[in-house]
Amino acid sequence: MLEKPVSSAVLERLPTYLNYLRSLPTEVVNISSASIARALSLGEVLVRKDLAAICDIGKPKVGYSVTDLICVIEKYLGYNRTDTAVIVGAGKLGRALLDYDGFSGYGMNLIAAFDVDPQSQGTAYSGKPVMPLSRLAAFCRENDIRIGILTVPVEQAQEVCDLMIDCGIRAIMNFAPVHLVTRKDVLIKNENIAISLALLAKRYSEQVAEETML
Amino acid sequence: MLEKPVSSAVLERLPTYLNYLRSLPTEVVNISSASIARALSLGEVLVRKDLAAICDIGKPKVGYSVTDLICVIEKYLGYNRTDTAVIVGAGKLGRALLDYDGFSGYGMNLIAAFDVDPQSQGTAYSGKPVMPLSRLAAFCRENDIRIGILTVPVEQAQEVCDLMIDCGIRAIMNFAPVHLVTRKDVLIKNENIAISLALLAKRYSEQVAEETML
Repeated sequence: MLEKPVSSAVLERLPTYLNYLRSLPTEVVNISSASIARALSLGEVLVRKDLAAICDIGKPKVGYSVTDLICVIEKYLGYNRTDTAVIVGAGKLGRALLDYDGFSGYGMNLIAAFDVDPQSQGTAYSGKPVMPLSRLAAFCRENDIRIGILTVPVEQAQEVCDLMIDCGIRAIMNFAPVHLVTRKDVLIKNENIAISLALLAKRYSEQVAEETML
Repeated sequence: MLEKPVSSAVLERLPTYLNYLRSLPTEVVNISSASIARALSLGEVLVRKDLAAICDIGKPKVGYSVTDLICVIEKYLGYNRTDTAVIVGAGKLGRALLDYDGFSGYGMNLIAAFDVDPQSQGTAYSGKPVMPLSRLAAFCRENDIRIGILTVPVEQAQEVCDLMIDCGIRAIMNFAPVHLVTRKDVLIKNENIAISLALLAKRYSEQVAEETML
């Protein structure tokens, strides 16, 4: 069956539903969209529409089977199939990500990191090796790697991005605060923690300004 | 003057424009929305509308003064005013964030971290101290801290979130993969790197599926 496409807003809420459903005690067998909405401070209609967009397992007056709904969302998000990815740039952030054990719960498996620094090469974090950048091409070919995380300094980001693409990587999560220029068939997701924090601070200051005006 | 509110989609594109404008050589005095659009692979109408939503400094046939536009966006995003923030949880991710020097470019200043682990207390990263969690309340009061980053394990996340709110923090960037329950006047921004990566992998696999069908 071909999956129905959903908007990116829905796609980004699905993991929130999943986290919440996973956190429920096993005693909870069924749950209504109203209960999910209340727990997550979301609108009930929104929750019902989101879930209806990916499945039709909700039953009137009963709601959703929690285990079935978890299963449906996991399958929809691809968490039941494992994707492998590599990190390029084994600085502090890269190493923190290598050590982070939360990826597997979302069907992701980070298997290695690459760096130009001879000091970090040959080391391993949580059993995942750091290898010389010159090994990237062969490693990606041998392991059919299509997904990469870029955690190098701004100055090297474009060059390293080009190299990753040459090595067959087609989806890049970019932590360098710079706009990367790539081919159209390459997906880039910019993750800028400083920008996220600044946007949060801006929203907070707007909220304070609104309260002051009331 | 009261700022016009813009959609969150516009708000999230503004830093991209800013990064690009900051990266231009100083020889570039004026720039058109068409050039910005081309460089960032965005639609020209979109760029023009985005910029029109926050300013009216664009001139027909001339475009925007680069320095003026940088200034307008920085001001709009609040980067010209510095907000201070703290980190709670000085594990690997928390320490990587303490060491990261990219926050100041976005008007954010992380000044300290807090942890329950006696081992990490008394240490410092890039000159920023790690203090006992019991010091959080006094520190937030003395420094008027309203913004916090939460990087503790899932099991402690809710309890630590409650404590941060008790200490006066009103905007929290949450890296723990769990839904936090809070008061309505507290802003929570969930940052789950594993989820972001999984969504990127999903988009990549959809793109491959589409290409296969063509």
